[in-house]
Amino acid sequence: MWRELLPLGRHPGSGGYRRYAWTGADAECRAWFAAQAERRGLRLDVDRNGNQWAWLGDPADGNAVVTGSHLDSVPDGGAFDGPLGVVSAFAALDELRRRGEKDGTRRRTRGQDPFPRPLGIVNFGDEEGARFGLACVGSRLTAGQLTRDRAHTLTDGDGITLPRAMEAAGHDPDAIGADPERLARIGAFVELHVEQGRVLDLSGDRVGIASAIWPHGRWRFDFRGEANHAGTTRLADRRDPMLPYAETVLAARREAELAGAVATFGKIAVEPNGVNAIPSLVRGWLDSRAADQTSLDTVVAGVEKAARDHAAAHGVDLDVVRESRTPVVDFDHALRDELARILGRERDDGQASARIPVLGTGAGHDAGILSASIPTAMLFVRNPTGVSHSPAEYAAEDDCLAGAGALADVLEGLVYG
Amino acid sequence: MWRELLPLGRHPGSGGYRRYAWTGADAECRAWFAAQAERRGLRLDVDRNGNQWAWLGDPADGNAVVTGSHLDSVPDGGAFDGPLGVVSAFAALDELRRRGEKDGTRRRTRGQDPFPRPLGIVNFGDEEGARFGLACVGSRLTAGQLTRDRAHTLTDGDGITLPRAMEAAGHDPDAIGADPERLARIGAFVELHVEQGRVLDLSGDRVGIASAIWPHGRWRFDFRGEANHAGTTRLADRRDPMLPYAETVLAARREAELAGAVATFGKIAVEPNGVNAIPSLVRGWLDSRAADQTSLDTVVAGVEKAARDHAAAHGVDLDVVRESRTPVVDFDHALRDELARILGRERDDGQASARIPVLGTGAGHDAGILSASIPTAMLFVRNPTGVSHSPAEYAAEDDCLAGAGALADVLEGLVYG
Repeated sequence: MWRELLPLGRHPGSGGYRRYAWTGADAECRAWFAAQAERRGLRLDVDRNGNQWAWLGDPADGNAVVTGSHLDSVPDGGAFDGPLGVVSAFAALDELRRRGEKDGTRRRTRGQDPFPRPLGIVNFGDEEGARFGLACVGSRLTAGQLTRDRAHTLTDGDGITLPRAMEAAGHDPDAIGADPERLARIGAFVELHVEQGRVLDLSGDRVGIASAIWPHGRWRFDFRGEANHAGTTRLADRRDPMLPYAETVLAARREAELAGAVATFGKIAVEPNGVNAIPSLVRGWLDSRAADQTSLDTVVAGVEKAARDHAAAHGVDLDVVRESRTPVVDFDHALRDELARILGRERDDGQASARIPVLGTGAGHDAGILSASIPTAMLFVRNPTGVSHSPAEYAAEDDCLAGAGALADVLEGLVYG
Repeated sequence: MWRELLPLGRHPGSGGYRRYAWTGADAECRAWFAAQAERRGLRLDVDRNGNQWAWLGDPADGNAVVTGSHLDSVPDGGAFDGPLGVVSAFAALDELRRRGEKDGTRRRTRGQDPFPRPLGIVNFGDEEGARFGLACVGSRLTAGQLTRDRAHTLTDGDGITLPRAMEAAGHDPDAIGADPERLARIGAFVELHVEQGRVLDLSGDRVGIASAIWPHGRWRFDFRGEANHAGTTRLADRRDPMLPYAETVLAARREAELAGAVATFGKIAVEPNGVNAIPSLVRGWLDSRAADQTSLDTVVAGVEKAARDHAAAHGVDLDVVRESRTPVVDFDHALRDELARILGRERDDGQASARIPVLGTGAGHDAGILSASIPTAMLFVRNPTGVSHSPAEYAAEDDCLAGAGALADVLEGLVYG
């Protein structure tokens, strides 16, 4: 199953994945999902927002248990971010069915499917936002956190709008929008994801449970100076916006260190961007996240103060615009405790399973979007390097198997209550 | 004359000029030049490299006096850089002829044209290099400092090669190359140019004489780190190339201040350049110039050391590539002294003309290219703000008239020897 998915959308040069929403690579991934569903006798269902669902049992019965993740990628992303959650969902179902076939008296599994609760596996569309610039479009639309009108204004780097891209991929863009009936039938959503940091690596655990998604924001810093000749303009006469920008990059690192947070300037746009021209404009984007809102506010206030001080010192104007703000996501406590209880149970082999660490994360997820509508939880699988959004992203096979096993335990525990 | 030239190639949005080589705007400027030549009874001559020459007298007689500059612009450049030298050339000729028509016994002018030496006005093509990335293409080709083969590899941002662009503009690209016979007929070339700094403004002079063009180089700094998720990667685990880049920008400013030089990071390219991605690559270009080679070497060595130290501290790899190096241009001392003598003479009105300052410049010019082949000099006209390569570039009308007057004096002094 994993091997069939691996080559899809992989760039031969970088070795990274370029699975962008509504492209050919995306269509190949969707065909793979449909084939996996069919192979297992699941009913495929593509919702109004283009998310794929594979059902065992009838979701109309309500209180469904859903797991899954996404198959799209960032530019030159890794193999695991997203796909591991979808592959593990199918693998966990296979494991549940194997358990059902066993005739062991000590088994907690109470029979073959259909299970007492409907079970769904989902592939959310456009989670990474690599093409249209907004993350979690599929889950946002479904949860009513993105309107059809606003979604219709999204445009990719080639000027193609989201509705045109959907249409080209055979999906009706006029049908998109909130889908509360669908969400009302779901009793629990559990997303498994490769960890995008090194908490599990440092604690020595294969699998962990998410506590929360850190609050997060993006700010655009526009430093406006004066374009001038780089060869002839005296230093004293310059209003060079690159200098306060550089000071601000370093301030962001210092403020993040002080607060135990993260802060990054990873995107920049310079005008006129000529070797022999002092820039008129340096535009830098700050991405910052912290364990709580107060820490995040402190970091950003510190960065902004440094930026204003250095801009003023260089005669440069500064505008700071908050482009996005995502409050903290605190995953459903009851479901989180339920997962901890299930995974903490004594195992068949008589050994207590490892202590299950509970960890926060700085990354956004479809589970974070849905947590506003339905009980939601996440499982993380160890990432030995912490690298993600890169071809070097990696998880060991044993850890992936442990993740799928933990997901099977969770699904089993939930569907049999 | 100036008014006819002003609207050509001016961008209605920015107010700046976009007169790029071999474009429609360039053709309009060339037509303006041809009309000015015809209006004055000059013989128009387009050389093998597309430079336009307007002749009074026969250059085959040798020892010609030539003045002029260029009409092309940087992206959103000002009205003066280049065109002021061409307009002043025609204006100076008009002034010489007016003087010839006068019947004053105290006049130094010894009659109407033709003058004892042939007089040429030139418009060099593609001085700014805005389209094909290499400056002074017209004069470099003529002086044999750019080979036909290398010129044929130059390509613009749309993938159009220089030969195709020349062909489209009706010029034979196979004919381009060194033109030593043409240069051998020129005894002196004088280029008038708006100053691109504030030396004359600070000294209170309208016009100055160039001493030298500072040595100049461009270096590319490639900081290679590791792409990773900006939200989840611990600060301690990062190899973020933006941080040593920022330190290097600040180091360049410090080193330039210490050496009385200039150093600028005005162009940057970042990969993947995503808001939520720690960059894998930050590529910055350093442009640095100083009064002498030793100072320039000191600045660049200091910047490179800072870059290496900070890159190593962040686990970032660094490559530094020198992309260009232009040694100091020391203008012909005899011609420079001749200009100072002419401009220092007592004037008709009995007043000694102002002391003529002699100043260096950090900007490259066609005069700098030609100085390796023929005696060359430059006149600068005061720039009250020092701004150039910008729509805000400016020179006062009185100063421009003083510049044209000084150029007339120089031409008169030279043609009558």
